[in-house]
Amino acid sequence: MTSKDFGARDGEVAAELPESYDASLYYIGRIRTPWKHRKDCPKNASESDAICTVEVDPRWQPGLKDTETCSHLVLLYWMNHSQRDLVLQVPSHYGTQHGTFALRSPARPNPIALSVVKLLGIEGGTLSVVGLDCLDGTPLLDIKPYYASTDSVPEAVVGWRKRNEQP
Amino acid sequence: MTSKDFGARDGEVAAELPESYDASLYYIGRIRTPWKHRKDCPKNASESDAICTVEVDPRWQPGLKDTETCSHLVLLYWMNHSQRDLVLQVPSHYGTQHGTFALRSPARPNPIALSVVKLLGIEGGTLSVVGLDCLDGTPLLDIKPYYASTDSVPEAVVGWRKRNEQP
Repeated sequence: MTSKDFGARDGEVAAELPESYDASLYYIGRIRTPWKHRKDCPKNASESDAICTVEVDPRWQPGLKDTETCSHLVLLYWMNHSQRDLVLQVPSHYGTQHGTFALRSPARPNPIALSVVKLLGIEGGTLSVVGLDCLDGTPLLDIKPYYASTDSVPEAVVGWRKRNEQP
Repeated sequence: MTSKDFGARDGEVAAELPESYDASLYYIGRIRTPWKHRKDCPKNASESDAICTVEVDPRWQPGLKDTETCSHLVLLYWMNHSQRDLVLQVPSHYGTQHGTFALRSPARPNPIALSVVKLLGIEGGTLSVVGLDCLDGTPLLDIKPYYASTDSVPEAVVGWRKRNEQP
């Protein structure tokens, strides 16, 4: 994997990174997917029905109690190959410049990715899920129950994407 | 604020924390809310219509380009007062023991909180939003556009909560 795979494109703008970090993370497990290279990953999770697995480290497995009763989960994971200083980006599938916080690109100051997944089942510390699009071996940060009451907003709109779709 | 405000209750179980961290975070701004003490915070964001503000640090403000076209955002923020070793918890409003990953409690190995908020407007580096329940001054980690196509699951169920509601 070369740095260019995860680097800046023309039209992209970087900020100067802060001199020090403010907080630290534990990897609590690993995500297993069929995708070994970035070019193989689906552009977003809705493009794939692949069943992926989430392996939770033994130390954290007791924390899974009752998680099997959730139909859907929010997974947070760490995009450990991502550039962290980009503030303006030109995603290749759009070809237009947008701010990092208007994008779901993995390149962001804190490269925490979020996916809503359907839970198929849990065996010991291993979850089977549908709805991921990340590389095999991606570090896991968190598992949360998905609450429709606060997390589901069917009418939400991302205006700049709508604009891009118009002729 | 005493440690007891954020500590363990009877029936709670802790894991041994790993000896070292695996990755690090930048605080990219601060969240401003009306709540100065934990006891004042709403139990969840749907309990409050309060307009809160999100202040993005100047270095990252160019990353907000086009974010104003989003009706809803996902905010990630850092629950910096939380205990990180709990695997089984007894939330006071439920009174029953559940795994950390079946709960949205701020106490978790990586205390990253997630809220879906309605965006009212952006002025410079300050966003006005509805849908937060955290303490004033909470560190901001990320802002993402909310994509109804992948993030909205109106039919999602958290089984153990349903069970608790039954007579």
